[in-house]
Amino acid sequence: MSALRARPLAAISRVGRFVQKIPGPVPRLQQVSSHFPAPIHTSAVIAMPPVRAPESHYDVLVIGGGSGGMGASRRAAMYGKKVAVIEESGRLGGTCVNVGCVPKKLMWHAADLQEKLKEAHEYGFTDAGSSFKVPTIDWHYLAEKRDAYVRRLNGIYDNNLKKDNVAYISGHAKLLGNSQVLVSPGVDGALDKEVTLTADHIVIATGGRPSLPSDDQIPGASLGIDSDGFFALREQPKRVVVVGAGYIAVELAGVLSTLGSETHLVIRKDKFLRNFDPIISDTLMDYMGQTGLKVHTHSNVKKVEGERGGPLQVHLDSDATLEVDCLLWAIGRHPNIENLGLKEAGIETDEKGQIIVDKYQNTNVKGLYAVGDIQGKALLTPVAIAAGRRLSNRLFGGPKFADDHLDYSNIPTAIFSHPAVGTVGLSEPEAREAYGDQKITIYRTRFTPMYYGLLTHKAPTAYKIVCVGEEEKVVGVHMVGMGSDESIQTVGIAVKMGATKKDFDNTVAVHPTSAEELVTTYNPVKD
Amino acid sequence: MSALRARPLAAISRVGRFVQKIPGPVPRLQQVSSHFPAPIHTSAVIAMPPVRAPESHYDVLVIGGGSGGMGASRRAAMYGKKVAVIEESGRLGGTCVNVGCVPKKLMWHAADLQEKLKEAHEYGFTDAGSSFKVPTIDWHYLAEKRDAYVRRLNGIYDNNLKKDNVAYISGHAKLLGNSQVLVSPGVDGALDKEVTLTADHIVIATGGRPSLPSDDQIPGASLGIDSDGFFALREQPKRVVVVGAGYIAVELAGVLSTLGSETHLVIRKDKFLRNFDPIISDTLMDYMGQTGLKVHTHSNVKKVEGERGGPLQVHLDSDATLEVDCLLWAIGRHPNIENLGLKEAGIETDEKGQIIVDKYQNTNVKGLYAVGDIQGKALLTPVAIAAGRRLSNRLFGGPKFADDHLDYSNIPTAIFSHPAVGTVGLSEPEAREAYGDQKITIYRTRFTPMYYGLLTHKAPTAYKIVCVGEEEKVVGVHMVGMGSDESIQTVGIAVKMGATKKDFDNTVAVHPTSAEELVTTYNPVKD
Repeated sequence: MSALRARPLAAISRVGRFVQKIPGPVPRLQQVSSHFPAPIHTSAVIAMPPVRAPESHYDVLVIGGGSGGMGASRRAAMYGKKVAVIEESGRLGGTCVNVGCVPKKLMWHAADLQEKLKEAHEYGFTDAGSSFKVPTIDWHYLAEKRDAYVRRLNGIYDNNLKKDNVAYISGHAKLLGNSQVLVSPGVDGALDKEVTLTADHIVIATGGRPSLPSDDQIPGASLGIDSDGFFALREQPKRVVVVGAGYIAVELAGVLSTLGSETHLVIRKDKFLRNFDPIISDTLMDYMGQTGLKVHTHSNVKKVEGERGGPLQVHLDSDATLEVDCLLWAIGRHPNIENLGLKEAGIETDEKGQIIVDKYQNTNVKGLYAVGDIQGKALLTPVAIAAGRRLSNRLFGGPKFADDHLDYSNIPTAIFSHPAVGTVGLSEPEAREAYGDQKITIYRTRFTPMYYGLLTHKAPTAYKIVCVGEEEKVVGVHMVGMGSDESIQTVGIAVKMGATKKDFDNTVAVHPTSAEELVTTYNPVKD
Repeated sequence: MSALRARPLAAISRVGRFVQKIPGPVPRLQQVSSHFPAPIHTSAVIAMPPVRAPESHYDVLVIGGGSGGMGASRRAAMYGKKVAVIEESGRLGGTCVNVGCVPKKLMWHAADLQEKLKEAHEYGFTDAGSSFKVPTIDWHYLAEKRDAYVRRLNGIYDNNLKKDNVAYISGHAKLLGNSQVLVSPGVDGALDKEVTLTADHIVIATGGRPSLPSDDQIPGASLGIDSDGFFALREQPKRVVVVGAGYIAVELAGVLSTLGSETHLVIRKDKFLRNFDPIISDTLMDYMGQTGLKVHTHSNVKKVEGERGGPLQVHLDSDATLEVDCLLWAIGRHPNIENLGLKEAGIETDEKGQIIVDKYQNTNVKGLYAVGDIQGKALLTPVAIAAGRRLSNRLFGGPKFADDHLDYSNIPTAIFSHPAVGTVGLSEPEAREAYGDQKITIYRTRFTPMYYGLLTHKAPTAYKIVCVGEEEKVVGVHMVGMGSDESIQTVGIAVKMGATKKDFDNTVAVHPTSAEELVTTYNPVKD
């Protein structure tokens, strides 16, 4: 597939690392298909972020302008502190905005539209009484428009810092002890020389990035791309191998498959999403398989041949060989710790290099804190934001916030798969492990949402409620199916409050919805 | 519009009343547009419901086979009681299944698809690189397929009764005192003569039906249809006037307008949905107006001219005249009490004819109960089901359920408007009235969901949280925007549990969703 244009591996800006300048084709920014009348609004946000000459001392220095850094810095500034954020990539927003949640959700919306376009004729939509050809995606147009949206967000983030009086320093920070940082110029040239800054508090929020096997580990591995590279794709790969069993692999494989790419998902064991409740993994394994995703279980890539941009032969240890146009590694993420001066500052990290913090986000060194993906717990944007805000509350918010910290239990989260997933609390196996089988009661429902009532094709919905003890305290809710991404947010409130099954039962249903099945499922599973 | 085929006003089967046999064209059941390949599966459900020779005495007789009747009868049978449901229309399921929630939701899904079809090109969907013509609805196909789905549900309801050992008697019931009922044969001929039955308990669940002005009140009023007639439409009216300001008017006008009918909504005052929180009515008034709905405020229909099936002239008291193909009254509903023998049985009703019950669903006559729309409180399917089930729990469930009854406070509900609405608890004005301005704190957010980030057209989302007292107990949540219909279900659990604003704040956001704004809105409204 010689026409497959992609920004090369790792050439996308990353939070907390220098951009690796690997040669490759330049992304065709702002070049859009001419048959679309709608303009792409980008004018306001292409500009460099404001350049500020750093002062020599700050109350708070935050390293990394992603979710955690934004949360910590803006909240500290709210308390009147002098705060600077140091970001090396030239773009604020971190993984979430640039190569994570935001562009991912937009791709998911596109895939969701593709499904609706395929289904509409069964509701009676026609072209003046005749059947219509199902439209397909112009990937290039979508990618450019999506990136323009991301650039608008970058600009909004920049303005937010300005509005909150947080200085934005463009460069790479290296710790020189617990109150000093050396900043080298960033990619955008906004800073023209190294500077040394001091601060009373330093928050490390450099995030993480996708992990890749080396060519030594798997010959030809570097012919593949990672999730950053996925967002750099300017054309849709006709055939793709996604490697990985986590939610990122499932989300990206889902988008590709739904938008019409022949998609292979290579996983090491018998199913994907094995850390989630089985109702999620089983339901998705079954349904995504039915809708065209080819899952290769108990398989590993042993060798990759071909050349970047051309067809690749992906050899599996099952002895199958897949010929595809794109290989996408989604096998995990690791923290951005290179050249940060962690060792010099005496900061303890775990075996994965993640910074070890206590429940208050303190590292082992006084005055140094870590929030977000760099500390390895719950790699989620809202967790990083909340942890950052609460850290600043605790440090600067006075006695009212002296104990403020983020409770990492019962964090609701969504997977933007097809259909979507929402989950909070313990999976059934986790609950059985924690409390013993005798104490666990499971409620489960599987149904077809009414939307599919008029369709031959039916996407499933399945919910599970995991309860503990006589009072049936709800310790886990697991949802897969249309709307689960939104519902789980508010399920999260109830679970966090310590809801029992009776609280669910006492809530009157909203009809006809999917979520009503959560409050009308009365019979415990007996197996 | 001579081609506008419709089942005539009131010719649709209704729960608890005889079908009025007004002459009119026969609906073209099972005749579907030939260009759709997908078969419509109806075979299993067209059959008559099972005919049963009634016994002379039952533990429980339930009059009406809608939501309330199904809830009460099946639950009573679960306790081993001998139960019969008496339904006169020949179709189980009542308003909800036949001419309410179910067909409404399917029409809403169609309208939602229409929006997606219009928007898809802005995500980059094309017909092989060229722009595609936006498909439009074949109303006739949709209506037939929708009705086939409804008939499947009728069949499922029938099977549910059979499975639960509830006798289904097809006929009209009239009370003869507190333990006797006279049943006349129903429309389907399953019963061939009048029978008199006795019972220890009689549950009245005959529901309600749309109200219409008489021709005396408004000359020509009967040229219009009601919501039952809406579901009888076999073709899309090109131009339509909907009269009414309640949620049914807004839902049906929304479907019509979104599917491309020129739609006029005539309301008596300055806005619709005035009983809901202003954030809902204001947001929808503004947005639906922008997207093509023509709202005529401070207007009443004073006269209608023309003929059924042909163009109608709808004269307003503003002196405007609207020429349309269809006039749809959605001005309210009233209870089905005709020929029920309420007076003879000594049952008290209110000024609207609704049966007065206490919190246990008891009427003033021992052994007679009422659930669902007939008792006039919270005209919602899940309320009727829950009230019916709890009534049977209380009567037959033993000491554990001796006090069982439905709490009518904090009932979450949705409006399937464009965009959808979810609401639970008190509106801001209600809360201010109940608690005084000083005690109320309001949190509010308005935003554009990310889906619209790539569209020129933006549908709004707006949420309001109404809190009371120092602890900021949440007494109302009002949501309008994509996904609100699903989210409100689970918001309802938290509100029912007595959530405070702090409980919302302590919940980690799910990103990127709309619902996350419910847990990340920190600044109270200061106005």
